[in-house]
Amino acid sequence: MRRIALDAMGGDDAPLPEVEGAAAAVRERALEVILVGDEETLHKRLAAEPPIAGPGKLTIRHASQVVTMDDAPSAAFKGKKDSSMRVAFNLAASGEAEAVVSAGNSGAVMAHGLFVMKRIDGVDRPGIVTIGPTRPGGHCVVLDVGANTELKPEMLAQFAVLGATYARVLLGTRRPRVGVLSNGEEEGKGTELTREAHRLLASAAASGERLDFDFAGYAEGRDFFPGRFDVVVTDGFTGNIALKTYEGTARFIFDLLEEEVRRSLRFQLGAWLLMPAFRALKRRLEADEYGGALLLGVQGVAMICHGRATGKAIKNAIFAADRLAVAGLPPALTDAVARHRHIWEGPDGELAAGPSSNDNSLGTRAFSEGGTGAAGGS
Amino acid sequence: MRRIALDAMGGDDAPLPEVEGAAAAVRERALEVILVGDEETLHKRLAAEPPIAGPGKLTIRHASQVVTMDDAPSAAFKGKKDSSMRVAFNLAASGEAEAVVSAGNSGAVMAHGLFVMKRIDGVDRPGIVTIGPTRPGGHCVVLDVGANTELKPEMLAQFAVLGATYARVLLGTRRPRVGVLSNGEEEGKGTELTREAHRLLASAAASGERLDFDFAGYAEGRDFFPGRFDVVVTDGFTGNIALKTYEGTARFIFDLLEEEVRRSLRFQLGAWLLMPAFRALKRRLEADEYGGALLLGVQGVAMICHGRATGKAIKNAIFAADRLAVAGLPPALTDAVARHRHIWEGPDGELAAGPSSNDNSLGTRAFSEGGTGAAGGS
Repeated sequence: MRRIALDAMGGDDAPLPEVEGAAAAVRERALEVILVGDEETLHKRLAAEPPIAGPGKLTIRHASQVVTMDDAPSAAFKGKKDSSMRVAFNLAASGEAEAVVSAGNSGAVMAHGLFVMKRIDGVDRPGIVTIGPTRPGGHCVVLDVGANTELKPEMLAQFAVLGATYARVLLGTRRPRVGVLSNGEEEGKGTELTREAHRLLASAAASGERLDFDFAGYAEGRDFFPGRFDVVVTDGFTGNIALKTYEGTARFIFDLLEEEVRRSLRFQLGAWLLMPAFRALKRRLEADEYGGALLLGVQGVAMICHGRATGKAIKNAIFAADRLAVAGLPPALTDAVARHRHIWEGPDGELAAGPSSNDNSLGTRAFSEGGTGAAGGS
Repeated sequence: MRRIALDAMGGDDAPLPEVEGAAAAVRERALEVILVGDEETLHKRLAAEPPIAGPGKLTIRHASQVVTMDDAPSAAFKGKKDSSMRVAFNLAASGEAEAVVSAGNSGAVMAHGLFVMKRIDGVDRPGIVTIGPTRPGGHCVVLDVGANTELKPEMLAQFAVLGATYARVLLGTRRPRVGVLSNGEEEGKGTELTREAHRLLASAAASGERLDFDFAGYAEGRDFFPGRFDVVVTDGFTGNIALKTYEGTARFIFDLLEEEVRRSLRFQLGAWLLMPAFRALKRRLEADEYGGALLLGVQGVAMICHGRATGKAIKNAIFAADRLAVAGLPPALTDAVARHRHIWEGPDGELAAGPSSNDNSLGTRAFSEGGTGAAGGS
């Protein structure tokens, strides 16, 4: 039976939603969920749940400490070696569990991913990835939505490879179209970061080297939805603001609509008739259905839930983690990064490479080493 | 009669929406709208309009050139001295018109604002400001939504003063609550820019000097809507992405709802009953109602419309420009900047100021001069 390690003490209301979500998961599927946290608390909490007669099972692994929202990520990692988060990550890193799920302090989750699971070779920084719906019924993968606020262009190029691989493995997107989030498509638009990342990806696409994805240029804030892009890469500051603006707008529109509906009986009747359509719409918009966010770029599967995740969100995250582990996401990522690192490293993979006839790749190299952006044809 | 100069050749479909919008405006209000552009084209276009018997009137001012979307802003300014945009800005700068409206190349509008109208003394960079609705029926003023992609902290502080003054003058907000857009409220969140801007504003608020606004800390992407902030300041890259994500999400939700409604007759009946509520909702969401965006920080009123602005949007922009001119926005901005420049300059207004007992302001000074962020209590 496959095993998922769940940090049962991470969320704002832990361990209630964690235990509920885990119980719901094992009632539905033949999984073992390892609840990691204070044994006594978890036993008590479990005793309050209806008996579990599902195909799966729940077990408990004791951990004496808890990472709080106020803990600095590195302090949490160094100072709380027996935290529920640390023990859960240890289980996943050692292979005792297929994946780990946490609704805890997301900076600390990031630190545990980095230091316990380790980065994939060739990846400078893992990113947090999320998935949104698109109009034709597809999906748009977006990263980074919060892990790294200040990036270099080569990291955005790495996100392109990671995101495209994620879309292939999770969603079956044959040849993902990848965009770089910017404020416009014209020459002068964007920041140094986005312009350099665009140049790296465009020159790799033009170089004739085989890529697993199509580089589709700049994406704007409205381009998450119409299905023109399967993957959009950005820094964690911008991505976080875009994600929260999306969530905030959706909630705002439903709230306003409710306000309008209250104005007359006619509207209330209309809303009653439309209720199933509204529910379907909300389901299509909700991130919960996709099981939360994933820390992408580490050697393993680490799902990050919102601190206020409900039992349902936790259950979905457990299922998503399991699906990704079964689908072989970690080896697929390692393989894809190895095959694409020429994008940010140049064709020979080493700074020491001598003069080359491939002007584009040389130009590329210059700024992948942190250059000033003046890089051109050698 | 008050006069508004309209760049009649700026938009993607110029001069059709411009002429329509101007005609609609003068039919409703006692304004003179000066259509600036090719005389012959404009006369022909006007001849096709129904006769105007409104309280206002239309006049035409010839300009032989047109700034296109492909023109670089500074080239447009230097190379096209008889463009419709330039002539329209000249009218506003010379006082022949109260304000200028353009749906042209927004970079070029920015350049004309800078070089024809000039910056307000104490403002480093003008920003583009827009207004969105909030839940309690109020408004949120957001800037910059596109003019400047790379900013310094003191410019965000200037935006706070400009945005707060705009909210006071246009919306009557007594004491605007101003936030700095970021990806979270915790210590380590944000970028160097947002953290330094936060520090500048927080220390000014704590210093006892009188401010026209309350500094309300960090705002996140979801905070545009619930009415906790009257003004949110950000760089033009992030602001543009947030704005387009907002617009994209709203459109996406309506498109999805239409899709759902088509599934059954019951839903269609419900949607028919709800139609007036949907219309009211859309009106509350649409930026058109607010008349487009304003270039804030220059010595005059310059409204920027979307390149695909409809006649209705142009009309609303003309009304908004007129309202701002009548309300005395330009002198109010000049006055507010003069009274608040201690926020980013320190209490003595000069770098050369000697040691002061006001630690906060000294700290403030250090990074308003482009310091490294290590500034603290002197």
